[in-house]
Amino acid sequence: MAFGPAAMGYDRAITIFSPDGSLYQVDYAFEAVKKGWTTLGVKTKSGVVLIGEKRKATQLLDIDSIEKVFILDDHVGCSFAGLASDGRVLIDYARSQALQHRLIYDEPINIDYLTKVVSDVKQMYTQHGGVRPFGVALIIGGIDRGKVPKLLMTEPSGQFMPYYAVAIGQGGYTATEFFEKNYREDLNMQDTILLGIRALASTLKPGEKLGPSNIEVGYADVDSGMFRKMSFSERAEILQKL
Amino acid sequence: MAFGPAAMGYDRAITIFSPDGSLYQVDYAFEAVKKGWTTLGVKTKSGVVLIGEKRKATQLLDIDSIEKVFILDDHVGCSFAGLASDGRVLIDYARSQALQHRLIYDEPINIDYLTKVVSDVKQMYTQHGGVRPFGVALIIGGIDRGKVPKLLMTEPSGQFMPYYAVAIGQGGYTATEFFEKNYREDLNMQDTILLGIRALASTLKPGEKLGPSNIEVGYADVDSGMFRKMSFSERAEILQKL
Amino acid sequence: MAFGPAAMGYDRAITIFSPDGSLYQVDYAFEAVKKGWTTLGVKTKSGVVLIGEKRKATQLLDIDSIEKVFILDDHVGCSFAGLASDGRVLIDYARSQALQHRLIYDEPINIDYLTKVVSDVKQMYTQHGGVRPFGVALIIGGIDRGKVPKLLMTEPSGQFMPYYAVAIGQGGYTATEFFEKNYREDLNMQDTILLGIRALASTLKPGEKLGPSNIEVGYADVDSGMFRKMSFSERAEILQKL
Amino acid sequence: MAFGPAAMGYDRAITIFSPDGSLYQVDYAFEAVKKGWTTLGVKTKSGVVLIGEKRKATQLLDIDSIEKVFILDDHVGCSFAGLASDGRVLIDYARSQALQHRLIYDEPINIDYLTKVVSDVKQMYTQHGGVRPFGVALIIGGIDRGKVPKLLMTEPSGQFMPYYAVAIGQGGYTATEFFEKNYREDLNMQDTILLGIRALASTLKPGEKLGPSNIEVGYADVDSGMFRKMSFSERAEILQKL
Amino acid sequence: MAFGPAAMGYDRAITIFSPDGSLYQVDYAFEAVKKGWTTLGVKTKSGVVLIGEKRKATQLLDIDSIEKVFILDDHVGCSFAGLASDGRVLIDYARSQALQHRLIYDEPINIDYLTKVVSDVKQMYTQHGGVRPFGVALIIGGIDRGKVPKLLMTEPSGQFMPYYAVAIGQGGYTATEFFEKNYREDLNMQDTILLGIRALASTLKPGEKLGPSNIEVGYADVDSGMFRKMSFSERAEILQKL
Amino acid sequence: MAFGPAAMGYDRAITIFSPDGSLYQVDYAFEAVKKGWTTLGVKTKSGVVLIGEKRKATQLLDIDSIEKVFILDDHVGCSFAGLASDGRVLIDYARSQALQHRLIYDEPINIDYLTKVVSDVKQMYTQHGGVRPFGVALIIGGIDRGKVPKLLMTEPSGQFMPYYAVAIGQGGYTATEFFEKNYREDLNMQDTILLGIRALASTLKPGEKLGPSNIEVGYADVDSGMFRKMSFSERAEILQKL
Amino acid sequence: MAFGPAAMGYDRAITIFSPDGSLYQVDYAFEAVKKGWTTLGVKTKSGVVLIGEKRKATQLLDIDSIEKVFILDDHVGCSFAGLASDGRVLIDYARSQALQHRLIYDEPINIDYLTKVVSDVKQMYTQHGGVRPFGVALIIGGIDRGKVPKLLMTEPSGQFMPYYAVAIGQGGYTATEFFEKNYREDLNMQDTILLGIRALASTLKPGEKLGPSNIEVGYADVDSGMFRKMSFSERAEILQKL
Repeated sequence: MAFGPAAMGYDRAITIFSPDGSLYQVDYAFEAVKKGWTTLGVKTKSGVVLIGEKRKATQLLDIDSIEKVFILDDHVGCSFAGLASDGRVLIDYARSQALQHRLIYDEPINIDYLTKVVSDVKQMYTQHGGVRPFGVALIIGGIDRGKVPKLLMTEPSGQFMPYYAVAIGQGGYTATEFFEKNYREDLNMQDTILLGIRALASTLKPGEKLGPSNIEVGYADVDSGMFRKMSFSERAEILQKL
Repeated sequence: MAFGPAAMGYDRAITIFSPDGSLYQVDYAFEAVKKGWTTLGVKTKSGVVLIGEKRKATQLLDIDSIEKVFILDDHVGCSFAGLASDGRVLIDYARSQALQHRLIYDEPINIDYLTKVVSDVKQMYTQHGGVRPFGVALIIGGIDRGKVPKLLMTEPSGQFMPYYAVAIGQGGYTATEFFEKNYREDLNMQDTILLGIRALASTLKPGEKLGPSNIEVGYADVDSGMFRKMSFSERAEILQKL
Repeated sequence: MAFGPAAMGYDRAITIFSPDGSLYQVDYAFEAVKKGWTTLGVKTKSGVVLIGEKRKATQLLDIDSIEKVFILDDHVGCSFAGLASDGRVLIDYARSQALQHRLIYDEPINIDYLTKVVSDVKQMYTQHGGVRPFGVALIIGGIDRGKVPKLLMTEPSGQFMPYYAVAIGQGGYTATEFFEKNYREDLNMQDTILLGIRALASTLKPGEKLGPSNIEVGYADVDSGMFRKMSFSERAEILQKL
Repeated sequence: MAFGPAAMGYDRAITIFSPDGSLYQVDYAFEAVKKGWTTLGVKTKSGVVLIGEKRKATQLLDIDSIEKVFILDDHVGCSFAGLASDGRVLIDYARSQALQHRLIYDEPINIDYLTKVVSDVKQMYTQHGGVRPFGVALIIGGIDRGKVPKLLMTEPSGQFMPYYAVAIGQGGYTATEFFEKNYREDLNMQDTILLGIRALASTLKPGEKLGPSNIEVGYADVDSGMFRKMSFSERAEILQKL
Repeated sequence: MAFGPAAMGYDRAITIFSPDGSLYQVDYAFEAVKKGWTTLGVKTKSGVVLIGEKRKATQLLDIDSIEKVFILDDHVGCSFAGLASDGRVLIDYARSQALQHRLIYDEPINIDYLTKVVSDVKQMYTQHGGVRPFGVALIIGGIDRGKVPKLLMTEPSGQFMPYYAVAIGQGGYTATEFFEKNYREDLNMQDTILLGIRALASTLKPGEKLGPSNIEVGYADVDSGMFRKMSFSERAEILQKL
Repeated sequence: MAFGPAAMGYDRAITIFSPDGSLYQVDYAFEAVKKGWTTLGVKTKSGVVLIGEKRKATQLLDIDSIEKVFILDDHVGCSFAGLASDGRVLIDYARSQALQHRLIYDEPINIDYLTKVVSDVKQMYTQHGGVRPFGVALIIGGIDRGKVPKLLMTEPSGQFMPYYAVAIGQGGYTATEFFEKNYREDLNMQDTILLGIRALASTLKPGEKLGPSNIEVGYADVDSGMFRKMSFSERAEILQKL
Repeated sequence: MAFGPAAMGYDRAITIFSPDGSLYQVDYAFEAVKKGWTTLGVKTKSGVVLIGEKRKATQLLDIDSIEKVFILDDHVGCSFAGLASDGRVLIDYARSQALQHRLIYDEPINIDYLTKVVSDVKQMYTQHGGVRPFGVALIIGGIDRGKVPKLLMTEPSGQFMPYYAVAIGQGGYTATEFFEKNYREDLNMQDTILLGIRALASTLKPGEKLGPSNIEVGYADVDSGMFRKMSFSERAEILQKL
């Protein structure tokens, strides 16, 4: 039969409730997240790491010029899975919010608060007409004042949750399973990074291999409180340790 | 047959009446409330308590960083069931209203009035086009001047009612039944809190157990007139008394 | 067959005419009125009384804190049946109109005029797009200058009519029948109130009984010209006289 | 089969053309007029009379407080059939236009012009989106300067026509037939009024009877040039002459 | 089968193209024109005449008070077929444009230009959302400076064309056929008027007859350059000459 | 079967993509162009000519007063096929742009640029909601500074292309075929005009003949750089040379 | 069966998610890109080249006046495949952004940033109602400060990626295959251009041949840092070297 509810359900101009209390457009937007490149974050006592995978569909793609982990401010970064152009819009917004905070209060923005203001934009796009939800989930991580590591993931609904470890995108399910078995909070920074890389590696198909061009790594340790991205050679080096 | 009224009914751009005088979008929004984590409130002569459950879907969730009971002002707090991002918007609004009231009148906002202004926003989202109703119910509780305990619940329709005890979310039905059997108005503060925790415990499945990480507790006693949240250790301690 | 006109008719974004000249959304809004708690009004030579029923779905409802009869100004009050949140919006509007009138003209607002301005808001919500009609009917009663008792009922369409006695909500039909048999214009104030209470009592199911917590009573006698609400004890006392 | 053109035709957000050049919403609005209480007007050399019927659905309706004939200005009045709340909006508008005219030009508004400005509002509601047409027809009558009697009827389309006699509402067809047989232009004022009352009486069902509470009568004679409404006793007196 | 393209085609909110490049709403609006009272215009070397028919549906219609030919300015008039209320809006607009032109340039508006500005309004109502096209065609005629007679007809699409003779409305087809057989450019003013009246007479059904109450006649001769309407007696007189 | 994709495709409020990447409304608008009167342009080394056909549906049409070739500025003209009222809007816009350019820069507007600004308006009407595309194609021709002949055609999509010779409307296909066989760039002005007229003649049905009333001719030669229209006698004269 | 999901899916007023997380309108817009003329870009150590094909549908098209490669600023150019009028809008925007950057910062705009601002406009047209996505993909190439060659392609979604070589349009697939076999980074400028031309030649059908009128070539070498377009004779010359 050709003309069932599902056929009608997805082509309407506003995000509204289904009879069971779901917001279909929001659920569908999450499907876009699930189709994105795998990305993940880990938080331990030593700090936070964000790792994004980059898949080379064709040799002609200049994959080293593609960014998957983004610095939002000195102390906080993010990664995303889903529609890249939607992600860009939210990252621009997050950066401008972080910058304004520094200008006005002369101190780094609180990471929970930064996540909240980004999520508030997402929520608005699920309740008002004439727009569609953002088809992207962000993993935001960094170090708050007082050396507190933070790791949060925002969903297309505008809901966000704090995590010890979180993975989204195509390999999100597999990596999450890996974390559930292997996560420990008392790791040093390097082991935290290695845990994240191993989680990503667990999502590879047989024969695939992670190279320094396939991943981006950003991390912040509680001591420095700075979020920085690893260089190509640093990535090559740490991949040796797998 | 695939293409009945229900299939059409939920995908329209505005909250309108069905032939029997219902507002479908509002009813569907209430379904979102019913799917939320259980939350409840109790009002006795001694004060008011709000308790929210936190369910740990995965060990990787940093559940202690999640808030389910919120301080709105010194004398009043709230909890909610339903879409978390919708709840956040209303809590932000309630806080700013309470704050403005203090600034303008130099006294705490009346809790009935605070509930009304939040509910008026909800009502507007059920009557005007281009938006969907809020998929969230709030339980608001606190102590008004004159040592009067207050406990109200606002529905997605914008209707609100005063209660002695009220429970919403997944376990709302079971907890309400518990209250109908066990509620008494003449309890001291600690027994009031214990009554609420027991009501929440009544919703657990066999084998489940409440721990200090699974609940948030906020309360206000008529003497102090202050709404405060219990710490982890306080929660651990009172759970001992079950 | 699943996909008939009714299935389509109620899910459109604006209140428009059906082929027989009805406004479906307005008719459906009236259904919401019919599902509300019973409320009624009586006008005699001695004055006007408004009575609202309060049904206790659960013992946990703090029914004494719920208002069903509202003072709009010194000389006029109202009650309603239908969506409580819609009613609240119109009562707020009526109160502010009455207040403005006192401020500008230094005299009480004429009750016909007050009813008209409230009804004009209702009419607007039946003719313009992007909104739904108000799902509420108001009974407005009071004493105009010159000791003239007034009793009017406004429908969701924005139409309003003057009545000697009127009843709406679940028991509206039964109470109206009671009035048609028992109404007399030459009653004193207490008998007017008793007539209203008896009309409400006529709507009870076998075994049900009116208690002072189940009703709210407001009245205005032509001599004082003031609209006042009965206290719990006054209600208990008059119920004795049934 | 349930899902024909008519089922679709009436539930759209704007008044548009059908393939045969009709405006369905306007036609449907006229159906609302046909369901209204009967109202009529007569114009003779002596003056103009407007008569509105009031049907008492229930004894509880305070029918003497209901207005069906309205004074717009000293020299002009109107009556209507259709949605009462729509009629009220247009009467308010007509009154304010007549008043403004007096204020600006210090003379009574021309009745053709007054009818035109009211009809222009109606036309706008048939051509622009987001609104529905007015479900009401107005009969406007009075005396223009130079002792010229005027009688016009405005349709929901915004079209208006001058008449010698016109009747609309439930009994419009029957009363029009009566006028076509009995109308004469050379009547004095009283006979003009009696002609109108007889036309209304012709619409009654067997056993029904017109009483002074069932009709409202307004008239303007060319000599005085004033539009005035008959009192209860005047109505009672003239009904004697039938 | 009930649910074909035509059933869907006419109930949409905007005038858009059909697959064959038609604008359905515009075509349907033309149907409204075809259902209107017959109206026509003739242009010869001597001048221009506009004639509108008035059909008396009922004796009760005060047909002599109905206008079908309108003076727009001293030198130009118009008539229309279609929705009367739509025509009124455009005539008001044309008059204000002609008046403004006189005020600003101190000379009569060029008739081609006047027709263009009216037609530009019509075009706008065929290309933008939220409105329907005008259901009316205007015949505009007069004498431009230099004693140039002008006769133009504007369609609902906003297209306009110059004509020697043109007829629209119910009898448009028949009258056009009459003109195609009988039109000559070298007629004096009276013969021009008679040609127009004969064309209108050709549209009558057997047994029907034109009387001075059934037609309105406006004309402008090149010598005076003034557009004037014939009085009742002038119309009666010229009808004698048929 | 009546209810296929085509039946739905044309009745929507915005120009959107079909699954194969077409914009249906734009394609349908082009159908309106194909139904218009034939119009064409030729560009040679000597200059540019635009020729529009005028078909006399009825003898009553004052065809000599109809314009099909329009002067936009001293050096540039245009013609169009499709909806006449849409064409008028764009020609008005082109003229005002050309005029503004002269006022601001004191030099004639570049023809490519003029075509671009007109086409940008067309593009906007294909991408934004609440409007339909323009149902008209313009042929714009003239001489740019440096004695450069220019000939461009703009489609409803807003795309425009430069041509040596181009023909649109009912006879567009036939005339294009004629050009493909007979076009040469090295013609003098008169032969250029004759080539265009012969192309138009090639589209006639057997028995049809071009007369000076059936065509409008505008041309610009590189020497004068002026776009001028041929008079009736000039057209009569050149038609002799066929 | 005529009425399947696809039939409904493409005719809605906003770009929304399908159940699998796709944005249909964006996917359909990409189909428009695939139907465009082939265009491609190559980036090597020596510089960047952009090549656009021009197909001569008819001899009458003045193909040498058509532009397919556009200079955006001294150091950067672009080409596109898809809807030409959409492309024009984005190129205008890119040029104005590049110009503003020079005016404000007195230095050339960074090519990544330029690509981002253009892509942000595209993204906006995929998330907001009342518009359709841009049906065009742009290839942007040039030399950034520090002699860094850049080559990026923006999709209708607003996503953009950096490439070594990229081809879009009708021959995009074939040319991409050619690049995957033949691309080398260490080519001098002339060989880079030849590689691009050969890739384009690989898309020709048997019997087709590239001539200097069929292609446009723009390139920027790292030494000069300037983006320039090849003249007709340069194109003729390099085609000799194939």
